[in-house]
Amino acid sequence: MVNQMSEGPDFDAIQEKRNGELYDMLKHRQVKRLQQTLEDMKEFDVAEFLTELGEEDSNKMAVVFRLLSKERAAEVFANLEAPEQEAIINSITDVELAGIIEEMYVDDAVDMMEELPANVVKRVMRNATPETRNLINQYLKFPDNSAGSIMTAEFVDLKKYMNVRESFARIRRIGEDKETIYVCYVTARDRTLEGVVTVKDLLLADDDDIIENIMDRDVIFATTTEDQEEVSEKFSDYDLLAIPVVDKENRLVGIVTVDDVIDVMEQEATEDIEKMAGTLPSDKPYSRTSAVEIWKLRIPWLMFLMLSATFTSMIINSFEDALNAQTVLIGFIPMLMGTGGNSGSQASTAVIRSLSLGDIEPSDVLAVIWKELRTAFLCGITLAAINFVKMLLVDARLMGNDDVTVIVAATVSLSIIGIVLFAKVVGSTLPIVAEKLGVDPAVMANPLISTITDTVSLLIYFCMATSLLHI
Amino acid sequence: MVNQMSEGPDFDAIQEKRNGELYDMLKHRQVKRLQQTLEDMKEFDVAEFLTELGEEDSNKMAVVFRLLSKERAAEVFANLEAPEQEAIINSITDVELAGIIEEMYVDDAVDMMEELPANVVKRVMRNATPETRNLINQYLKFPDNSAGSIMTAEFVDLKKYMNVRESFARIRRIGEDKETIYVCYVTARDRTLEGVVTVKDLLLADDDDIIENIMDRDVIFATTTEDQEEVSEKFSDYDLLAIPVVDKENRLVGIVTVDDVIDVMEQEATEDIEKMAGTLPSDKPYSRTSAVEIWKLRIPWLMFLMLSATFTSMIINSFEDALNAQTVLIGFIPMLMGTGGNSGSQASTAVIRSLSLGDIEPSDVLAVIWKELRTAFLCGITLAAINFVKMLLVDARLMGNDDVTVIVAATVSLSIIGIVLFAKVVGSTLPIVAEKLGVDPAVMANPLISTITDTVSLLIYFCMATSLLHI
Repeated sequence: MVNQMSEGPDFDAIQEKRNGELYDMLKHRQVKRLQQTLEDMKEFDVAEFLTELGEEDSNKMAVVFRLLSKERAAEVFANLEAPEQEAIINSITDVELAGIIEEMYVDDAVDMMEELPANVVKRVMRNATPETRNLINQYLKFPDNSAGSIMTAEFVDLKKYMNVRESFARIRRIGEDKETIYVCYVTARDRTLEGVVTVKDLLLADDDDIIENIMDRDVIFATTTEDQEEVSEKFSDYDLLAIPVVDKENRLVGIVTVDDVIDVMEQEATEDIEKMAGTLPSDKPYSRTSAVEIWKLRIPWLMFLMLSATFTSMIINSFEDALNAQTVLIGFIPMLMGTGGNSGSQASTAVIRSLSLGDIEPSDVLAVIWKELRTAFLCGITLAAINFVKMLLVDARLMGNDDVTVIVAATVSLSIIGIVLFAKVVGSTLPIVAEKLGVDPAVMANPLISTITDTVSLLIYFCMATSLLHI
Repeated sequence: MVNQMSEGPDFDAIQEKRNGELYDMLKHRQVKRLQQTLEDMKEFDVAEFLTELGEEDSNKMAVVFRLLSKERAAEVFANLEAPEQEAIINSITDVELAGIIEEMYVDDAVDMMEELPANVVKRVMRNATPETRNLINQYLKFPDNSAGSIMTAEFVDLKKYMNVRESFARIRRIGEDKETIYVCYVTARDRTLEGVVTVKDLLLADDDDIIENIMDRDVIFATTTEDQEEVSEKFSDYDLLAIPVVDKENRLVGIVTVDDVIDVMEQEATEDIEKMAGTLPSDKPYSRTSAVEIWKLRIPWLMFLMLSATFTSMIINSFEDALNAQTVLIGFIPMLMGTGGNSGSQASTAVIRSLSLGDIEPSDVLAVIWKELRTAFLCGITLAAINFVKMLLVDARLMGNDDVTVIVAATVSLSIIGIVLFAKVVGSTLPIVAEKLGVDPAVMANPLISTITDTVSLLIYFCMATSLLHI
């Protein structure tokens, strides 16, 4: 980052310079120039600039926001996070608010409603037209994370008897406010979906060609109640720009566009990662989540795992005599538990991710176990061999610990093999079982698997010790 | 899944039925009908069908593949995984191979080259035209995971003096083979990028409007050496369908389209998840990775973590006398280490993910530490209180363990507070330090953080015990 000169054009530098200029205009009250610059900027950049302003002074943010033209205001507004949206709603008039709501895409409006506090939602709804209010209410009824909850109503529909010229005329007439114009949907009179035609198809066809003859009848579609993760899989499989969403009667009710799917993918990956680490999933970014909220997300698993460690205490207590006879064994407990935990979470992580990407199915369970058994055998043998040599060379020789005998080293090393085998099989099987039961496999969090392997690791170790060392 | 009737249109059922028909045609050697059906199917579905066939008999797969028309063959080929691509290359003629290579998009061809064995790559290259060979070689030189390595050369370029009518004529003429026609790039004579214009802009403009007047000069672009993760962030920020990639002289050399970015996002999330779980990242899906390959990915971290547990052994050994005096303390070691490890990985996971989504920056380190300290304090107090009550009620009363005194319960509970505080701060700080040093924060894998907190947890526990219990 030191020598950007040699790197060619620098995207970040351009943006920083532009933001500096914005602050200058604001300082020198060059309202006209500021207004013009904001009008030319990308909505995301305006939203970022407003957020930055709002961190200093939310009043200033609202003042600058009101400089935007009506359409821009709605687009920028959709790019803001909930706290900024709330601050702005609280400082604009009902008329301005109504203007923004009517200009927003339904999916953005619904997103916003889901995050704003109830009293603000009330004010927004009061200022929407009855049609918009109905539409929003209808969308809010779809289950969380369903295709219905992320779709939008702003699509271009065509009829199969239209020709290409008429279609282009329609796209030009209604296209301005649509989320995408590049994929158009052909519907019957009862609104059932009959086909799909892209602007590329239209451009490569003749003006007099009839839609019916160029449309694709084999449409990739989603249903309103379908999980958003499945929807995003279809985008990645079929390289879609948009997908039509139909209801039970196969009527076209909305579309999901690729930009929303990108957000869904980020959100789903984040949720999986959070669950794997034993945190409840959150719908807010980390930087926006307060310490108390984070505490609420993290404490349930911590508490559960702490209390379930009662089993490990009980096992250790019941083997107290054996441990007193051979205190050297105590020192290897952390290493064995750690190795078990790590082996298990490696396996569970691989399986959870593969399930979520559709790379493996629950029916592959036997193949997965077989693969993990072989992997575990290789890992176990390697670790055991290295540990055996290390204990005799380092612990016994180098550090002169006479209690570390060959038989003790063998006990620990053989335990490693058993523990790794157990951990890999449990780590890979539990997520698949969860998926089969219809539970999110990521809930088989790595910490949970660690706790199970901790308990069993100790049992394996102590059984090995009592039988090999005759204690 | 039992009663699909009430669910309305069923996507999966339609596909299954179609695949059944394909097998029937194959069985009854209805070549013409099979050919026609394959021609009408989505490329992804044909690729899936071929892969399924190949699992039984790779010869059959190659025979069906050769039924495809030339353009379809290239598209389907790009949708196949490396093993199937290799099998097909090995069973087609040089002429057929040449046809496929020339029809493929450069980015797909480059992807393929990176995964095929050297002798197959040689045969492919020998059959490509000199231009294609040069282009592929040039792309292969870009660093892994850079914008250059995922871009494609098939874009529509316009000149700023063209009018809308001329632009549409050009799009119609050259558009068929381009990865996207919806975003067109305006370049100068020296190929530097001057602006961007979408087909939507063109459709909403008049036929005689000049490109210069409708194009957007404020282009969101990427540079060839830019990391693919930054590229995908730009797509998510600005809702792009494609991004132009420029070289150091600001010359347009390629574009990255949104479908490739979706793959990048999946790949990056998978890599982060793998690294967090202490596995080396793999570029192959789990189902395609052999046990030996998985062993190679997993054993380095397992070995490192096993050996670094030597520290915990050393600590336990050096406090042996204290433990012998109060054997009751041993039973709580696993619980304390587990609590430390889980607290740490919750924090590191949240921070790693936020860094990778651009939600926090390394400069936020103090704010992050402050937030984690408060969270840790809340978590620590809660866990300590519950543990204190639990030890006195369950361990002492219920299980009648007389060694669990109030002072022992206090020792363990106070240790929990210290351990959680330490774990959360280390877990959140290390990934940020890594990012600042230019190292991937995900490499601060949760297992590594667990090992560090394991060691310190024991130290905190034993110090607390020696001072409170005077042993």
